[in-house]
Amino acid sequence: MTINVITISGSLRKASFNTALMRALPALAPAGFRFFEAPSYGGMPVYNADVQAEGFPADVTDFADAIRKADAVVIVAPEYNWTIPGGLKNALDWVSRLDNQPFKDKPVAIQSVTGGAVGGARIQYHLRMALTFLCASVFGTPEVFVGLAHTKFAPGTLELKDEPTRKAVADQLAAFAVFAARHKA
Amino acid sequence: MTINVITISGSLRKASFNTALMRALPALAPAGFRFFEAPSYGGMPVYNADVQAEGFPADVTDFADAIRKADAVVIVAPEYNWTIPGGLKNALDWVSRLDNQPFKDKPVAIQSVTGGAVGGARIQYHLRMALTFLCASVFGTPEVFVGLAHTKFAPGTLELKDEPTRKAVADQLAAFAVFAARHKA
Amino acid sequence: MTINVITISGSLRKASFNTALMRALPALAPAGFRFFEAPSYGGMPVYNADVQAEGFPADVTDFADAIRKADAVVIVAPEYNWTIPGGLKNALDWVSRLDNQPFKDKPVAIQSVTGGAVGGARIQYHLRMALTFLCASVFGTPEVFVGLAHTKFAPGTLELKDEPTRKAVADQLAAFAVFAARHKA
Amino acid sequence: MTINVITISGSLRKASFNTALMRALPALAPAGFRFFEAPSYGGMPVYNADVQAEGFPADVTDFADAIRKADAVVIVAPEYNWTIPGGLKNALDWVSRLDNQPFKDKPVAIQSVTGGAVGGARIQYHLRMALTFLCASVFGTPEVFVGLAHTKFAPGTLELKDEPTRKAVADQLAAFAVFAARHKA
Repeated sequence: MTINVITISGSLRKASFNTALMRALPALAPAGFRFFEAPSYGGMPVYNADVQAEGFPADVTDFADAIRKADAVVIVAPEYNWTIPGGLKNALDWVSRLDNQPFKDKPVAIQSVTGGAVGGARIQYHLRMALTFLCASVFGTPEVFVGLAHTKFAPGTLELKDEPTRKAVADQLAAFAVFAARHKA
Repeated sequence: MTINVITISGSLRKASFNTALMRALPALAPAGFRFFEAPSYGGMPVYNADVQAEGFPADVTDFADAIRKADAVVIVAPEYNWTIPGGLKNALDWVSRLDNQPFKDKPVAIQSVTGGAVGGARIQYHLRMALTFLCASVFGTPEVFVGLAHTKFAPGTLELKDEPTRKAVADQLAAFAVFAARHKA
Repeated sequence: MTINVITISGSLRKASFNTALMRALPALAPAGFRFFEAPSYGGMPVYNADVQAEGFPADVTDFADAIRKADAVVIVAPEYNWTIPGGLKNALDWVSRLDNQPFKDKPVAIQSVTGGAVGGARIQYHLRMALTFLCASVFGTPEVFVGLAHTKFAPGTLELKDEPTRKAVADQLAAFAVFAARHKA
Repeated sequence: MTINVITISGSLRKASFNTALMRALPALAPAGFRFFEAPSYGGMPVYNADVQAEGFPADVTDFADAIRKADAVVIVAPEYNWTIPGGLKNALDWVSRLDNQPFKDKPVAIQSVTGGAVGGARIQYHLRMALTFLCASVFGTPEVFVGLAHTKFAPGTLELKDEPTRKAVADQLAAFAVFAARHKA
């Protein structure tokens, strides 16, 4: 069975460790997973119902369509100020206002990368709350927290070098494949 | 003692109940409080460290300066998808990257208004977490949760009509005045 | 398909609204669900690894066995001081130390009843976090928050009278039946 | 000024790292702090309003009296299943039912020690929520998260050996002294 997975990075900078982890996923995934990066949410305006009343921005509808077309979603996100990055949350806020809710019953796995030791142990639960409201089918365990990012990725290439991290990610993707396949069946 | 309070609404639409509550604060506050609305964060781009590297947007530095100049802050925010509105969080994310951290030791009170019955019982604790990271001095109790907004504000004028809500807000502001004055002393 | 569901109330008092809701479940559930009440956790001592070293109390192993035998779990819990009741959490803490983890891959649905208006919007997410750690398969939406309990249950008999609440509970159980059946298949 | 601080460990086992950190506090505290350990909550029954109706257990009233007599509180707690240990929470639940609320306006600082890397980044925010409800005056930053406990304490003696941790604790206590003194003034 082929499972089309859309991936979303919670960080927009080019040299982001979270984006680097997102790009490492295909090499660590079981057969059958095909990965596509979601269109950027970086150009979305701050959510405002008055703006919405004039029509959803194309960036929002493109982002939503990409999620709708996918069988599953993986979000890889940093922790900003102990919770969800505002930009990523803003994208979810826009999407949440659409009819034909893109996240409804969609299997979603979460990973997080941080510079500090904690590895995102706070953001993931706030993201789970938002995704629960959006009626996503949020994958449980194993969880992936990647702390001390600068020790896990190669300088310059940002290749994921740390073997325990590679294994943790591969283990989650293997379990997520079973979870996502159950939704497609 | 005069305490200059900057107010921030977590909703950008013109007819926002949260903005309506924010505008009701002066009439419910003890003597000595003077209120100023923060400049809008609605035009801030989504946070991106690469953009930051080229210079902070003026919207960010204006917002930060307004907070720095104030003695205290009141944030009135809705709950979007069970947590902090992305736009408000994006403003905090931008501000968090500045030197001379604007929220450091600043007394901050939180109120929330929602259409549903819960009144924001989820968002406030996520906001407390973010503000704790920013080293704000977050006011404790009494808390103000305003649910079923359409029954509390007058249609059209959005005047806060509900007496128990007016009293709850006034009680919080009275306690917050003592709290904030202690920081200024 | 028969699905055996173990039910746990987060409140121990005889006239508990949460226990009353727990007891209303059979009448609101789809065909195929059979309900059993979990043995009481009220006599468990406070968790202490030194006590554990001398052997798990029988109350703990009985509670765990009942969960292991069930196909699914429904927890109905109040909110104590904005989070999980200590007694219920203590039961989870004891269970978490057992081999052959009782909650592993077990479908779990959550409901909450409170005297105040909020209906448990805080406790449910903390409970989701604990159950995620225990590798439970936590059911997503629809969520059931029952506020203003004294207006929803008949005085004396504690029968669940409120029709919108009965419908919300029935809707959740119908969706949970599909979710739980998928785990048993 | 002398500030009497009651200390509470969230773990009951004799060789607890959290209790070890609690016992390291006097040597790391500024002049003026005097520390007393709270009476054990280990013998409290699981909270039950029907038991309360027959009278509060002596363990509860002793624990509450010790908090009332103190000028400030430091809680040092592990993270059990991603949130507050049930036993500690049970003690707070009992205390919350008393008149003359012991935590009201009491300055409270939080520290956490865990075996894993995260150091308690989840439990602290749930504990802040419970303490906010109890009207405590919860200290903000700097926060103290002690991960990888077995590398920080001497085997056998459980003396806190790790210098960066000693400094982090001392820094928090110095800031907490100022915070607590402001409440006593």
